Amino acid sequence: MIAELIAVGTELLLGNIANTDAQILSQGLSALGITVHHHTVVGDNPQRLREALETAAKRSDIILTTGGLGPTYDDLTKQTICETFGRDLELHEDILEEIRTWFQTKMGKPMPANNVQQAMLPVGCTVFDNPVGTAPGCAFLERGVHVLMLPGPPFECRYMFENRAVPYLKALTKGAIVSHEIKIFGMGESAVEEALHEPMTTLANPTLAPYAKLNECMVRATARADTAEEAEAMLRPLVDRVLKTLGDVVYGVDVGSLEEVVSRLLLERSLTLSAAESCTGGLIAKRLTDLPGASRVFRGGVVSYTNSVKAGVLGVPEALLEEYGAVSEPVARAMAEGCRKICGSDLAVSVTGVAGPDRDDRGSEVGTIYIALAAPEGTICKKLSCGRGRGRDRVRSAAAQNAFDMLRRSLLGLPL
Amino acid sequence: MIAELIAVGTELLLGNIANTDAQILSQGLSALGITVHHHTVVGDNPQRLREALETAAKRSDIILTTGGLGPTYDDLTKQTICETFGRDLELHEDILEEIRTWFQTKMGKPMPANNVQQAMLPVGCTVFDNPVGTAPGCAFLERGVHVLMLPGPPFECRYMFENRAVPYLKALTKGAIVSHEIKIFGMGESAVEEALHEPMTTLANPTLAPYAKLNECMVRATARADTAEEAEAMLRPLVDRVLKTLGDVVYGVDVGSLEEVVSRLLLERSLTLSAAESCTGGLIAKRLTDLPGASRVFRGGVVSYTNSVKAGVLGVPEALLEEYGAVSEPVARAMAEGCRKICGSDLAVSVTGVAGPDRDDRGSEVGTIYIALAAPEGTICKKLSCGRGRGRDRVRSAAAQNAFDMLRRSLLGLPL
Repeated sequence: MIAELIAVGTELLLGNIANTDAQILSQGLSALGITVHHHTVVGDNPQRLREALETAAKRSDIILTTGGLGPTYDDLTKQTICETFGRDLELHEDILEEIRTWFQTKMGKPMPANNVQQAMLPVGCTVFDNPVGTAPGCAFLERGVHVLMLPGPPFECRYMFENRAVPYLKALTKGAIVSHEIKIFGMGESAVEEALHEPMTTLANPTLAPYAKLNECMVRATARADTAEEAEAMLRPLVDRVLKTLGDVVYGVDVGSLEEVVSRLLLERSLTLSAAESCTGGLIAKRLTDLPGASRVFRGGVVSYTNSVKAGVLGVPEALLEEYGAVSEPVARAMAEGCRKICGSDLAVSVTGVAGPDRDDRGSEVGTIYIALAAPEGTICKKLSCGRGRGRDRVRSAAAQNAFDMLRRSLLGLPL
Repeated sequence: MIAELIAVGTELLLGNIANTDAQILSQGLSALGITVHHHTVVGDNPQRLREALETAAKRSDIILTTGGLGPTYDDLTKQTICETFGRDLELHEDILEEIRTWFQTKMGKPMPANNVQQAMLPVGCTVFDNPVGTAPGCAFLERGVHVLMLPGPPFECRYMFENRAVPYLKALTKGAIVSHEIKIFGMGESAVEEALHEPMTTLANPTLAPYAKLNECMVRATARADTAEEAEAMLRPLVDRVLKTLGDVVYGVDVGSLEEVVSRLLLERSLTLSAAESCTGGLIAKRLTDLPGASRVFRGGVVSYTNSVKAGVLGVPEALLEEYGAVSEPVARAMAEGCRKICGSDLAVSVTGVAGPDRDDRGSEVGTIYIALAAPEGTICKKLSCGRGRGRDRVRSAAAQNAFDMLRRSLLGLPL
């Protein structure tokens, strides 16, 4: 089955926001084994939306629209789709009641009159009720094409896709599609492709496909079968083969981010962590505290962006700073040890390096990074060169990613 | 003039990456007064790219493509465009030499043979040389349509658009287009639209348009005239009117982020800052150290995610933590004062609050935030409720944004 995405919103054409909905939906459709051939963005303009729908109906089996389901005069998606496909809109009293309740309980005010428009839906459609916003979505089949409408705000779009559109689409595809994501750090996408070239290029079912992400990559194995159990049985040897081929650069299967894996390992071992950050400037702490419940494993840390904070707060000896400079192994070690002591954590990680754009005052190259890990049994330190020539952001994110991987390897007893 | 964007890349259709190039280009085209009616994404597929080009050539004056200029077999943009518009490709020796040099100096290795393809460009085109990568872009006029080709990687795309495409497009438009961006924090987009409804809806030249961003918004004033001086003269009274209408919620005209404005104010006053962060967990430090040269104004800080770090590192009295809880005004004040002391900075900001997903153990609502600012002349503190019902990320980013605005207002002597 071929799907196509149409996003509706002048704010996308003005560059006000990026079309992240298209990324969310594309990932999800790919995981369902549905191929996407086109993304289109049009403004809040019924004529151009109608043309885009006519074109899409000729070449695709499934059309997913995002946006234009709001209550204002420029929200024209439902009306235009109904005109294009020859359907009428009708009022759904139960949906209207849900929207009224949402305003009362979530917004603490009565529903404005123009929100009634949101309860108008195509005759005979499958209603996608929206518990995370006011705009319901819907779907219908007309002219052999499935048309699905989802709200535009990314949070709502993701929820409605995963919880409403995915079950609808799964019912369209015969049998079961199951996929597993193998997450990788420390091996580039092209090296992964080379190592798995044969299964990636020859297998038809199950399939194996690589995905590059910022500072890491991922391989997705997908199988179709009559039942989920059969699909799982087809996937098991393939996933095992990937794990065996790639070894310990795989940090997890069907897991979240590297920091999520580290947090889980810490929790399982009842260990706490703190972080002393120089060039990453709070990025490690920020990423750990992005996770709900972070306080169970992360005690906090120090952003020692200047030498006086390294010395005064972390207790790095002034003599070390003078002799070796801030970007050095002895200082990285002293930062981690000092942080562990003052934060009272079981482990402490430290990062010091040159994020750029310029070399440091001792001439260390941009991208030179020292990462240290202090533990009850002693302190280890690693020197890296990362993200060079790709800008300050990349150096910093690569440094943080390497720090998390050092923690993962240390907690699992893997070679560093 | 009507422009349209075509992005080429299967990785976009797989949801591997979001089409951020489209956002960058749309913003830039809008600033040039060029209207964008469509974004299209197709995969690395010559037939579908050709169809997209044919459709675009019928309805637009300018086509900008992104992606598919690389050296591998699936990089088909130039070939397909040349076939569609009836042009030949020819080898540009000078561009080939530049690519060779790039490999030698930046990558430290000889140019692989297939990169020769990147020096093949349409006959008679305007060459966009690429000093930040290996893929040159180009532009030509055929069938009354300007076709511009830019590389896909966002960093290269942005550079090549701003430094190569913008001058090309400016030469197409008669006269000068000048715009100013008025950046706003503390007033929502709809309130801004209401306050400036009349000029936004009635003016034709200059124009005034609103843009929403995460936790802030922006108004862009744009004028066209024969010369830049004339355009500036047209803009001046309009910008003054906006500034007068909106007052001190405007944090700058043609400036970067709120943290950039704060950093500049600190630098001008030779003041240093540190940050004690609880619920923001390093986000304030991370945003300040995103800026090159941050160490001139930012000394560092403490991520005091647990009470023991608040007490042990920042010196918050245990009695305060017990009596009032971590999310309280006395603790926020003590965090800022302690941080100022241990980091030896002129100013220190602190944030403590409930990021969610759950209330804290004393029942404070998600989104409850205390921000304190310690200075030589004393400490001030503010209680806010922000980002409620929009998830942990939104609470954290709103809290950080409010902390920066409190600093800005304090440094400028504005009401808090």
